[in-house]
Amino acid sequence: MNAPGPALPPDEVFDWLDTEAATRAEAGLERRPRQRAAGPAPGTIDLEGDDYLGLARDKRVAGATAAAALKWGAGAAGARQLGGSLELHAELEHELARFVGAQAAAVFPSAYTANLAAVTALSGAESAIVSDKSVQPALVDGCRLSRGDIAAVTHLDTDAVAHALSTRRKPRALVVTESVFGVDGDTADLGRLAEVCRAHGAALLVDDAHGFGVLGDGGRGAVHDAGLASAPDVVTTVSLSGALGTQGGAVVGPRRAIRHVTEVARAYGHDAALAPGNASAALAALAALREEPELPGKAVAGALSLAQGLRAAGLRTSMPAAAIVSLPAPSAQAAATWASTCAEHGVHVGRICPPIASDGVTRLRLTARATLTESDVDTAVKVIAETAPR
Amino acid sequence: MNAPGPALPPDEVFDWLDTEAATRAEAGLERRPRQRAAGPAPGTIDLEGDDYLGLARDKRVAGATAAAALKWGAGAAGARQLGGSLELHAELEHELARFVGAQAAAVFPSAYTANLAAVTALSGAESAIVSDKSVQPALVDGCRLSRGDIAAVTHLDTDAVAHALSTRRKPRALVVTESVFGVDGDTADLGRLAEVCRAHGAALLVDDAHGFGVLGDGGRGAVHDAGLASAPDVVTTVSLSGALGTQGGAVVGPRRAIRHVTEVARAYGHDAALAPGNASAALAALAALREEPELPGKAVAGALSLAQGLRAAGLRTSMPAAAIVSLPAPSAQAAATWASTCAEHGVHVGRICPPIASDGVTRLRLTARATLTESDVDTAVKVIAETAPR
Repeated sequence: MNAPGPALPPDEVFDWLDTEAATRAEAGLERRPRQRAAGPAPGTIDLEGDDYLGLARDKRVAGATAAAALKWGAGAAGARQLGGSLELHAELEHELARFVGAQAAAVFPSAYTANLAAVTALSGAESAIVSDKSVQPALVDGCRLSRGDIAAVTHLDTDAVAHALSTRRKPRALVVTESVFGVDGDTADLGRLAEVCRAHGAALLVDDAHGFGVLGDGGRGAVHDAGLASAPDVVTTVSLSGALGTQGGAVVGPRRAIRHVTEVARAYGHDAALAPGNASAALAALAALREEPELPGKAVAGALSLAQGLRAAGLRTSMPAAAIVSLPAPSAQAAATWASTCAEHGVHVGRICPPIASDGVTRLRLTARATLTESDVDTAVKVIAETAPR
Repeated sequence: MNAPGPALPPDEVFDWLDTEAATRAEAGLERRPRQRAAGPAPGTIDLEGDDYLGLARDKRVAGATAAAALKWGAGAAGARQLGGSLELHAELEHELARFVGAQAAAVFPSAYTANLAAVTALSGAESAIVSDKSVQPALVDGCRLSRGDIAAVTHLDTDAVAHALSTRRKPRALVVTESVFGVDGDTADLGRLAEVCRAHGAALLVDDAHGFGVLGDGGRGAVHDAGLASAPDVVTTVSLSGALGTQGGAVVGPRRAIRHVTEVARAYGHDAALAPGNASAALAALAALREEPELPGKAVAGALSLAQGLRAAGLRTSMPAAAIVSLPAPSAQAAATWASTCAEHGVHVGRICPPIASDGVTRLRLTARATLTESDVDTAVKVIAETAPR
């Protein structure tokens, strides 16, 4: 470790950022996302975003944003604990809870802060947190901000969860998982996890961002599908982007857990509240889901068709249980080239690099939508297979 | 420390939350925020929210949300690194940077995540972070998530900052402060802080959430006012709620620092992108500020009138440099009663409790708006003074 050097000229203070940028570029980890224009881009297929049900552009949903902005304003004009709580938030919280069959919900401007709030509020210095080691960044950050003991266990290994719970040194415990993992689209066995939690007096927190609106009866999510939506010891986080097509997040669960999150979590009370347009869009998306309960199944079927087509073409893919499929790439550089070549052929795919890809393997990540046609799937499979690195 | 007990019945797993709720209620720390209806509430004065310029309900700003939702959709349909980057985001980033005179900006769905991203990306294992100990929760969380050494120094004490920098054991350093502190509305001496940073080769990160749109030439913020907006070693976070009246946040500064934040911060690339309606509202609010550069001064004058009136009535207040005034209460219980009695008389005031009030003193917190009339100020002063605890 160097001792702190003498005063630097101000324009050299951030020189280290350029060094790191060069290192990232050399490793194929540079990120320069494309910028989308308004309106659909004819002749292209989007397998990159998470608008699983095509509701972001749905007239009912976008129209609800517009109407709410004109009625309620462009913003909520305050944090939830400082004048920014609206009757519209309460209505959305009620509807979210009712849709999945839970007692209560709390909405946030971002799913990231919803996850931070849930993990930190539902744990503490007296808690052990046992987390699947492949959970997404917001959950990782939530664990790191908690004051409890943290055990990160092997991906999808319920025995490892049981072991960590039985050997913990704290009286309370919180088990943290995703239902559908955002990187590969693989799924946790929530029923088995809940059993393990109950055998050890632990609470279960499930991030259902990629299951909500996609899995379960009419899109009620993976937690509902596992029969746990009204369980007294299970709390769920959901996203208002993704299947619902807008922006924000929510924590859903037993009333006392939700109340605790809203009173204690600093990311709830002291960040600006969800804008009225986003809240109203989420309500409209829930109504659309009730009107078209077949939408989620179409997204899942699309992902399955993509995976089957790609496997038939000789590629390795994850096996999708929801709307996400991934393909490992031989290197980060190869993935970057593969993704950009696909884009040149009109097929936009995602790319997940380390450290988000926690095993160090960069992959292409495809998301299906309810609106994908068979022809879209055929074209996408063809392009992805033909541009695959040898 | 108790050893982990035997299996709990599932409905007892969260019993500890009820115990904590009872403790909070007894201490006067219970939070049950009012829920606002749509439209202004006649006969009431709102000194609680942070819509400093009255733009949340402005037709230009709310109308921009509505138009953008219909044109672009209710959501961005992806994370910034996964298909959710829009030309509209780039336009807002360009305009934000241009407005304050910086090279570049990156927008986020929440100011909370913008602050997390800035602190974590601009520090690391080789960094010392020196933070004013009274900074707001997102900055505290950002420091705790960073892998550097953290020193939290006395509030507004630049000598303590200099001492921490000169005795650090890490080669790099980041100094973290608010420009206008959100709790009391007091201000950091940014010019002096920048000098201290430069004497020690440190970068300066300023959260200008309560200065942006309120202080400086036409509302360009406290960092601009200190002549630091284009400095190569200063990064600023701003809020798209507050003065701009919508939802979201941004990091503004030197191009290479912004690029680093967008490539490295997990809260940037892997949370859903800012919804188009919010981005467009922020653009409209910036245009409104250019059209009415006198708005910010009105908000500041309102806060000064409030403080002067309250002091003339014999109350202690903070001395506002921006649009926030606070009044210490004798206890949390007294503050709760005081605030609810004010509300019964039609004056809505905020309440900041520990641990957000890091000195343990609960206060009433008042925010002024550009739209406050003299009569509003007189009424508010009368109600707050007459209901003050003896």
